[in-house]
Formats: sequence, C-alpha cells, structure tokens
Amino acid sequence: MAAKKRIAILGASGYTGAELVRLLLAHPRVEIARLTADRKAGQEMADIYPQFAGADLPRLVALDGVDWAGEALDLVFCALPHGTTQTVIKALVAAAPQTRIVDLSADFRLADVHAYAHWYGHEHQAPELQTEAVYGLTEIYRRQIKQARLVANPGCYTTTAQLPLIPLLKARAIEPARIVIDAKSGVSGAGRAVKEANLFTEVSEGMHAYGVGHHRHMAELDQEFSRAAGKPVIVTFTPHLAPMNRGILATIYVETRRKRSAEDLHGLLDKAYSREPFVHVLPLGQVPQTRHVRATNHVQIGVVQDRIEGRAIICSVLDNLTKGASGQAVQNMNLMLGLPETTALEARAVFP
Amino acid sequence: MAAKKRIAILGASGYTGAELVRLLLAHPRVEIARLTADRKAGQEMADIYPQFAGADLPRLVALDGVDWAGEALDLVFCALPHGTTQTVIKALVAAAPQTRIVDLSADFRLADVHAYAHWYGHEHQAPELQTEAVYGLTEIYRRQIKQARLVANPGCYTTTAQLPLIPLLKARAIEPARIVIDAKSGVSGAGRAVKEANLFTEVSEGMHAYGVGHHRHMAELDQEFSRAAGKPVIVTFTPHLAPMNRGILATIYVETRRKRSAEDLHGLLDKAYSREPFVHVLPLGQVPQTRHVRATNHVQIGVVQDRIEGRAIICSVLDNLTKGASGQAVQNMNLMLGLPETTALEARAVFP
Amino acid sequence: MAAKKRIAILGASGYTGAELVRLLLAHPRVEIARLTADRKAGQEMADIYPQFAGADLPRLVALDGVDWAGEALDLVFCALPHGTTQTVIKALVAAAPQTRIVDLSADFRLADVHAYAHWYGHEHQAPELQTEAVYGLTEIYRRQIKQARLVANPGCYTTTAQLPLIPLLKARAIEPARIVIDAKSGVSGAGRAVKEANLFTEVSEGMHAYGVGHHRHMAELDQEFSRAAGKPVIVTFTPHLAPMNRGILATIYVETRRKRSAEDLHGLLDKAYSREPFVHVLPLGQVPQTRHVRATNHVQIGVVQDRIEGRAIICSVLDNLTKGASGQAVQNMNLMLGLPETTALEARAVFP
Amino acid sequence: MAAKKRIAILGASGYTGAELVRLLLAHPRVEIARLTADRKAGQEMADIYPQFAGADLPRLVALDGVDWAGEALDLVFCALPHGTTQTVIKALVAAAPQTRIVDLSADFRLADVHAYAHWYGHEHQAPELQTEAVYGLTEIYRRQIKQARLVANPGCYTTTAQLPLIPLLKARAIEPARIVIDAKSGVSGAGRAVKEANLFTEVSEGMHAYGVGHHRHMAELDQEFSRAAGKPVIVTFTPHLAPMNRGILATIYVETRRKRSAEDLHGLLDKAYSREPFVHVLPLGQVPQTRHVRATNHVQIGVVQDRIEGRAIICSVLDNLTKGASGQAVQNMNLMLGLPETTALEARAVFP
Repeated sequence: MAAKKRIAILGASGYTGAELVRLLLAHPRVEIARLTADRKAGQEMADIYPQFAGADLPRLVALDGVDWAGEALDLVFCALPHGTTQTVIKALVAAAPQTRIVDLSADFRLADVHAYAHWYGHEHQAPELQTEAVYGLTEIYRRQIKQARLVANPGCYTTTAQLPLIPLLKARAIEPARIVIDAKSGVSGAGRAVKEANLFTEVSEGMHAYGVGHHRHMAELDQEFSRAAGKPVIVTFTPHLAPMNRGILATIYVETRRKRSAEDLHGLLDKAYSREPFVHVLPLGQVPQTRHVRATNHVQIGVVQDRIEGRAIICSVLDNLTKGASGQAVQNMNLMLGLPETTALEARAVFP
Repeated sequence: MAAKKRIAILGASGYTGAELVRLLLAHPRVEIARLTADRKAGQEMADIYPQFAGADLPRLVALDGVDWAGEALDLVFCALPHGTTQTVIKALVAAAPQTRIVDLSADFRLADVHAYAHWYGHEHQAPELQTEAVYGLTEIYRRQIKQARLVANPGCYTTTAQLPLIPLLKARAIEPARIVIDAKSGVSGAGRAVKEANLFTEVSEGMHAYGVGHHRHMAELDQEFSRAAGKPVIVTFTPHLAPMNRGILATIYVETRRKRSAEDLHGLLDKAYSREPFVHVLPLGQVPQTRHVRATNHVQIGVVQDRIEGRAIICSVLDNLTKGASGQAVQNMNLMLGLPETTALEARAVFP
Repeated sequence: MAAKKRIAILGASGYTGAELVRLLLAHPRVEIARLTADRKAGQEMADIYPQFAGADLPRLVALDGVDWAGEALDLVFCALPHGTTQTVIKALVAAAPQTRIVDLSADFRLADVHAYAHWYGHEHQAPELQTEAVYGLTEIYRRQIKQARLVANPGCYTTTAQLPLIPLLKARAIEPARIVIDAKSGVSGAGRAVKEANLFTEVSEGMHAYGVGHHRHMAELDQEFSRAAGKPVIVTFTPHLAPMNRGILATIYVETRRKRSAEDLHGLLDKAYSREPFVHVLPLGQVPQTRHVRATNHVQIGVVQDRIEGRAIICSVLDNLTKGASGQAVQNMNLMLGLPETTALEARAVFP
Repeated sequence: MAAKKRIAILGASGYTGAELVRLLLAHPRVEIARLTADRKAGQEMADIYPQFAGADLPRLVALDGVDWAGEALDLVFCALPHGTTQTVIKALVAAAPQTRIVDLSADFRLADVHAYAHWYGHEHQAPELQTEAVYGLTEIYRRQIKQARLVANPGCYTTTAQLPLIPLLKARAIEPARIVIDAKSGVSGAGRAVKEANLFTEVSEGMHAYGVGHHRHMAELDQEFSRAAGKPVIVTFTPHLAPMNRGILATIYVETRRKRSAEDLHGLLDKAYSREPFVHVLPLGQVPQTRHVRATNHVQIGVVQDRIEGRAIICSVLDNLTKGASGQAVQNMNLMLGLPETTALEARAVFP
C-alpha cells in the first residue's frame, strides 16, 4: 500500500477545521500530521471538540512553531480567518514550495487584485500568488485544480449558486441581467466566533436577512458568472440566517432567453452533471431539502417552471460545512494528490 | 360598563382557534360564549390545549348543535378548514342575519366566482355571500370592514406581501411585472393537521421550498395587486418552510419605475403607515426579524437599496398566527363591533 | 383614576430587563419612568430590542446619572449582574429610603451572611439589607412581601423546585434526605451574555448537564427547604441545558413518609394551591409541558406514582423569564404597591 | 477479496431502516440485497428518503414476496414494529435456518416469556425463539452474540442506561434499590409514525416527561440489572422528549455501597471500558453532551461526585438511531459474520 500523504490543517479549532478532521479521519490515504490553532495551542483537539475523544490526532500547536520545510507536508489546508491568510501562505510557499495548499478563506478567490482591493478595502499582500491561485469549484475547474499548487476553495453561498447557474450562463440560456438569488443558510456558516447575533436565543425561532445589498460574497459571484457568460454579470443576492446548524438553500429566480422553458434549463443541468458523483439534478418540478444533504458532499438541484412564462425557479442545496467548505476542500485535495476524487466523501445524509 | 359582546369560535381546536382564545381571554369587552370542534366535542378546551387550564371557557360542542338564532351572538369567528366553510356560513347567515362573521378560511377571499372555481376546482357554494364579503386586510379596507357583515380574513403569506406592495403599486412606483416574492414561514401555518411532512424530524434542521409555481395563495395576491395597480398583475411567489413555530418573512425583489430609488419607496411606505398602530416601517437600510413580532399583531417592514440600480429589496415580517390570522381577525372584530381597534392586540413580542 | 406608579428598571438591556418592559407596557397602573443600561446608555430600547419599535419608553441612561432622591420612584427593579447589585442597592436605599425594590439578582436571597460568604467567596457588601430582605417566592411569602422594602426575587430553578416541594416538606410528607431534582432549562436563563457555550451551534440539537454537584442555586434550595422542613435539608440537584429559548422542567424524585402515596402528595399540593391564580396542580397522573406555560406567569405541577412503592415523581414547569424572573417580580411589585396581584400577568401561553 | 455478505432489511421505510441503509452503504463487506416496506412496496428508497438519490439500492418490495430460502441471505435486519415481528421471524427461521437475524424490535428482548406476557399483554408467538435469542448489548454479550442466530438488539434508552450501570452492579458498588434514571431523548426515537404529539409545533421549544412510572422499556432494564446484580432489581426511570432530532442523555443518580466514592465508580467504569472502541469514560467530573456523539456509534460516560456524600451522578449519552439502534445492530452483524467489529462504524460526530 502506498504511503499515506502528510497533511496539516492550519486553524483547526474553527468549525471548518473540525469538519476537515472529521472527514480526514475516515480517509484511508492521508495522515493528519499537524494541527495548528494559536489560541488553543497546547490543547488536544478532543479538549475543544469532544467528539474526537480517543482519536489519534496530534496536539494543537501555534502556527509560528511549524517548520514548513522540515515537515515535508504533501498538502496544507488553511482554515484561517479572512485577511490573515495571505501572509501565512506567502511564508509557507517560500519555505516549502512543493507543498500544495487548499485555502478555505476568501483571500485568494478573486483573480483580479483590483476587485480584491475594492471589496476588502486594502491591497492584497501576495498578489503573485493571487494570480497563480485556481478557483476551487471542483466540477467547473477540475482540470486546473489537479495541477494547482494553490487552490482557493469557494465560499458556501457561492458554491450553492454557481453550480446551477454556470452551465445555464455558459449556454446563454438565461438572461444574465435578471438573476435573483435568495439564499438561506444555517448558523454554522458564521463559524465559532462568539457574537451576540449568533447566540441560540438570538437565532432560534425566527428568520432574517442580513448583508442585504452589499455582501462580500458578491465579488466571487460576479467573477464566476462573468467568466461563464463571457461578459460582465452582476446579480441580486440576499443571504438569510435560518435557525438550523447546517445547510444552505438558494432559491434562484431566472428568466430564460430565446423562449427556452424550465424543461430546457433542466435538460442543460441534467446533462452538465449527469456524470458528477456529487451533483444530483432532481426530476423536473421537484425541489430539494437541505436536510437530505446534511453532513455530505452532495448537492441537489431542482428546476421548476414558474407560472409566469419565460421564468423558472431553481432550488439548490448543500451542506455549508461540507460541500460548502471542508468537503469540497477534501475533494480538491483528492484531485491534487492523485487520489480517487470521492474518497472519504461518499457518505449519505444524516437524516433525520 | 357596556355589556360584553357575545362571541363564538367555530373550529376552536385548530391553532388559529387556540390563538383566538388566547387573544380574546385578554379582551375586556368580549365574552367567549361558544366554542365548537366537531371531533373534540364534549371536551374542555384545556384538555386539548393545556395552556387554558383554569380559564373560564365553555365546553367544546359540535357545530350542528348550535342554535344560531337563539344564541344571539354578536360575532362569529369561523376557523374551519378551507372548503367546508361556505355551507356553514350560508346556514349561519340564514339563521342569524344580524350576526357578524370573520372567516379565517380562504373560502370568501376571492371576489370573482370564476377565479374561485379556477383555483379550487369546484363552483362556490354561496356565491351571493362571496360577492358581499369584504377582504379583511385591515389597513387597506378599514372603512369597508367596519360596515361588513362578512369579512374574509386574508391569508398569512398574502398579508405579509400585500402590506408593503399595495402602497407601491398604487403609487405606480414599481414595475408590476417584475415582482419576486420569496417567503419563509414557520410550521404553525400548516395547522395541527397530522401529516408526515410536519413531523419534528422532517422539519427541524433544514429548509425547503414547497408549492413552487402553483400555490393557491397566488389567487389572493393576484386579486389585490391587480386592484392596487389598476390592471392585471401576476407575481412570482415561492413559499418555504422554516424550522420555527411562528413567523413569516417575505423577501421581496422589485424594480422601480421612473428612476425611483429605494429611498423613494421607503418614503412612500413610511407615509402610508405612519399612523398605523401595527405597521412599522424601519429606517431605510434596516431589515426586520420575525422574532421581533412573535406572538404580536405587529408588522415590520424594511427597505434596502440593491447594488443594482433601479432595484430594491423589501423585507416584511409578521406572526402568521397573529397578524397573519387570528390577530388580524380580532382587529377586524374590533372595527366591526365599534371597539377600539387595538384592544387586546397591543402586546409586544415574546423575545427571546 | 389613581396616578400611575413610577417605576425604574436597572439593567434593562438584559433579557430579564426586556421581559420586564414587555410585561409593564401592558400594565395599566404603572409608568416606566427610567431605564438604565451602562454599556447601552444613550440608545433607545428599540435599538437593542426591536420588538419595542414605536413604544413610548425613556431612553437608556447610565446608572450613575440617576438622581434617586429626585426621581420619586415608587419601585425599582434591579436586573443587574450578581455581585454588583449590593452596592447599587445600598446607595439607592440611602438616597431614597421610601422607594421599594425588587432585586432579580441572587445578591439578597440568602438570609445568612455566612452562607452567602461560603457560596460566593466574599463578604456581603450590605449585610444589614441582606437581613431585611424578604425572599420573594410569592405564594409562600405573600404577607411579608406586601410589607417589604426590599424583595429578593427567587431564581428560576429554585422557584420551579420550591413550589411543589415546600408544601410537602411542611407537611412532613416526604423524606427530606431523599430528594433528587433533575432540572432542564431553556437557554434564555443564561442571559444575553456572549459566550461560546451559548452559541446556536453549541446548544441546538443536543442536551447536557452542567454545574453538576456544585451549582450556586443550591444555597437557595437549602435555605428554603430547611425552613420548610424545620431542620437542615440538602438535596441532589442537577441542571441541564435544553435546546429551547424558554422554559424549565424540574423532574423531582421523592420518597414518601409514613406510607403516604402519590395520591396523598397530590392532595396536599392541590389543597395548598387551590386558590392560587398562577399555580395549577394537574389531575393525578398527568404531567405538564413547558410550552404550555410559555411566556406566562403560570406554573403547572403534575404528580405521578412511581412503580416502586413509596416513591413519587413530580414534574413542575414554568417560564424561566416570566414566573422564573420578571413575571414573579411584577407579581411582587403588585403586592408591594397595593395593586391587584394578577395585573398584567394573566396572559395564557403562546402555544404553538 | 472475499465475496460480500448478502443482507436484507425488513421494514426499511422507518428511521432505523434508513439509518441501516446509511451505515451499510459505507460498509465494504456487505451488499444490500433486499429492502422490504409493505406500504411503500414498488417505490425506490430515494423516493421516500431523498438522501439516497443516485445510490445503488434494490427497489422496495412487500415482505410477503420475499423467498427466504431462495435469497441465500447471510443476515437479515428486522426493523418492523413491535408485535408483528414474532411471526415474521418465525417464518424466516423456518424457511432459511442458516440466515442470521438482528431484530431491532422489542419482541425478543425479554428472555422470560412470563415477563413478556405481563408487559405486552399477550402470549409470545414464538417462545422457543425467545429463549434462543441473545440480548444484543454488544459490550456485555459479545461472546454470545458471535454465535447467535437471533440477536435481540437492545432499546435506545436501555443501552444508554445499561452501559454505565451494569459494571457497577456487577461490582456491587452501588445500591441496587436506589437507582434513579432521568432520560432525555430526541424525537427520532418515536420513528416516522404520524402522530399529533410528534408534530414540529408540538415538540419544538419545550420539554416534557412521558410514560412516567410505566414505560415498557422498564422490563428490559429490570432483566439486565437483575442479571448483573444477581438479584431482583427495579429502578425508577423517567423518559422525556427533548426538542432535537437525535440523542439520548441519561442522568443517573446512584448511592454507593461500602463508602465507595464517585472516584471509585469512575475507576470501575474506566477499567470496564478501557479497551472498548465505542465506549468512552470521560475524566472524573466531566459530563458528556449528546451532540458530540451525534450520528455515531459512540457512547460517552461522565461520573461526578454529588455534594451529598455517598452519592454520584452519572451522565451517559449516545445517538438513539445509531448506537441506540441501527449502529449497534451493525456492530452485532459484524460480530455475527466474523467481520471486524468496528467496520462502517468509526465515524466521528457530525458537530456542529
């Protein structure tokens, strides 16, 4: 049997870190060699995530203490906060240029350094790497991901919306100027950050929109939709917080071009994803539920004809921590390391 | 002190019936004289809703056993299932023509008997009453409601969407052909009906759309939006089920006419509702949360400028059992019986 | 009509503060004259609790800015954190000795200054007031509360457990040494404090015990149970956190004395509370649910015979923010100010 | 590679059936050859559990249509309702005596036919098989399970309570007459049965006890505790319904014998389970949370010293659908078929 690949997770104490550990512990071909978490350095992973009691995992260490060159890591997952990631990865690449990287932050998702500066309010700290980075929406960029040294793992909202819309935009089947994306997310998308707005009492038994009109994920949507359409596209996008742990549902309102019907759109998506292991297009007229992809790397997409001719409603669901973050990261890792793409990702939903 | 008004609730065993009892027990000017519930006849209300232990309430009786003429009721709330209501109200009116009625079903909401037949698949059983009935969206039809014998209380989804949209359509401020309503509802909207789809395990920890493209509430929306716009309007409307007991959030996407801004829309709504006790328009750019109107008759509306010029996003929230059903029914009762409109409805949200 | 009583709430920005505002806004005989909240001073209550949009409430001010003597307050609710309360109340009493006080913290609940020092790890800062304070379990100390200047409002867990147990201990009907209290609480009991342990993601979809073997509320239990039994009593008590906003359920395991049956215990409780407006003893063998007292001042108690002879299981439920805190505080206020005890507290549960 | 074992699931449309499918799809050594579900016969599993879209599974068939002899099944999971199972298994054994069986119902858990008749109100229909059946609490009966033809998989409540208590009773470390078990369960334990009491609106945002004093699972507890203690033991046991999908927490109150401390009890449990892959005894004084074993076959046990000398509080958690039902069933299958015991069961909790 081949030697196991040596893997590190930077920022293992967040929810995407814990989800990476959950997935990788079941992966037969990798070894978790390093876990970093600055504020929790010195603790065991099981101290902060008791579900790992008894698992064979390295103790958490501070980021600064890691000798990148000496570790001989095959791949590093970077699950650090947005903004701090650029300098960390720059240093890592300098010290260990052979090590592959999957970055789960937003820091390398925008290919255009100007767009980055516009949305994030400061110059990018590693512009040459930003140019090199491959956007990690696996089903769309599989070929480039295999070769990439640095993959910018997409956001959870954007993955949910891009998978159904990119094939339709590429086929010129919908009006790019008339896309409305109404997205509902579980609370784990906010991470383990301790904020009043994320208290149980503030989130349970209610719903609300947030970031209306100006959410940062829009830059990612703009970039990929424009690439797909071959011209600038901006969309209306509204995220909402739903009282659940996991799951994103994007309800997408589109207008068809050239008298195409919902059935036509369904056919395009069905064809685009017929061989994909993780993207399931439901029969025309059926809608998916987030709970049926809970804790999995699967995406389910439904297409319904609106009662207004020329319009269709598309529902897309995934688990924000899995296909929306750590699952897609592992999927990308599998490709980058030459492993079967679905390894450790074949689980079906925990439902109920 | 004036004598208390004699009130009956038909179909008291459902959630809207229980909500009526909750509100009316705190009403100083009415007496709950009769409660009917065919399958629970003979039981106490506290047997099926233990929150009423110790309250002074009449025993549940079967509908057939009520002598409408002899009861001398001032007003009857009809909280029976859609479809069965028409014949019940027809008989009631025949026996006790002085008794006022607030019907919480959908049976009398459509003024057009042809529209009714189209959406419900059968002829209306009381077409002359259908014509007489006043649509009970209080803030819009207050004057007519005061005089009405029969008020058709609006649906919960439709109340949520109509309150923000009707003033804008009347003012010709938005494009009638470009309205998208994405609505999220708590589970109590489905009533106490025992269905697999409403089990805790099927609803919690997840979201999904339902009735996409063909929900019956659309007929009500069409009717009122067309009245407001002065021409036929049909909209895109998608209801979703959210894992919470109470609350509806409608996220509404509109395009403005004649270069109006979100600020203009906000101004129109602010003016329309500035004297309304139950409709609050938040400062421009703020969005409401369903939990902040929980168990109240209040509506909160927020208006936000989209990043795409000429588009605005409007969020409207209410409690589907209160302003969306029983609360608005009591508000209408107050008007019909000449009582102060806000009596028994001034409670602020139970939050957290 | 009599002039309204002037009321202040110190610490209005917490959940018990908001619950006091909710209850008092519906109280016809009081006026909320002052609201303090140090960190939120200068803001409107509606800024931090949007459910109060449009309500007529004073702006939040800092505690230090209040002129106790000049305000001529009839009663002050003190909803400040445990520990800081003693010096605040000491100053208040010195400046305005006529003003009555209901303190919702734990600071004045223990009559014994030594017990206080033992459980809280420091000397009491106002020992003379500690001696004066009346323990505010309304149904047990109604007579003393009416006369009291300073009422120490009981904790939510302790109210839930004391109401069923005190009559049984007084009647020598159960073994004081064999009481086990297993309590389950909603998350709002933890207040609006921003802690990782109270995040939605950490609390939803799961249960756990906490403070096992050493919870501070035990001192309150000891004190009142010993008073009732006429001899020292200590009990086994375990609090648990349940994924819900409101509600406490105490499941209490007792052994009867002198061959008494569960029916005998039920009879004792039924008699003790037959005239109480807020305490309902269910028929023998029935058990209550927290949701049926949600957002109310009601308590429901059920008594069941265990299959082991000589043992009974008692379930007691209340809403931790209402009867467990702010509701009981208003009940006590009503008594202290000579108002009808149930004013503003008669609401029935918001269910579903 | 060895041929895959041929497996059938009878009653695959319930939640334990779906959980078996979820686990077995990830099992490299078994093949799901047959799925029965009488009312859903003819449908695909993905029609009733959309999480299985795209999975390679046999169509659901009616039980009567299965030719037990011809199927050459290695093992059958029986997930049928209590009561109907006896005759089904009797027929299966007669037709295919070599096929091993894991029964998830309660029908074969009581070795004593008289106890069965007492608790279930009728004679057992297959008394000879009842005698043969091995009680499937894996950690306690591993040796017998390996040889058994028919394993009676334990109930979820009983597994939670038995794992911590059996070693203590065997060691004579606690008073058998003084055990109180207060258990809290998620709603999936009630199955997919459509009952008003299990609606989202009836279960969310609240807690209550049920079956107080007379729950059928007590017979199982009695049997196993008496075996362990070597004399008749009956305990006080109260189940509660908590607003969550999965998880059981048993809070167990015990009195030690011969001046043993909580530390002694902890030591006994630690020793009993030190080599067990699925039972984790936390450090003394720590308590487990159900969410940290969610969707896993793991059990976590915590032991805490009560403040009353001679008493300890033990918390035990598991997932009612996994270790409490289908997971333990697969664990038993692995033993019965000579496969590694942990295969397909090593997943760590889905948290958050």
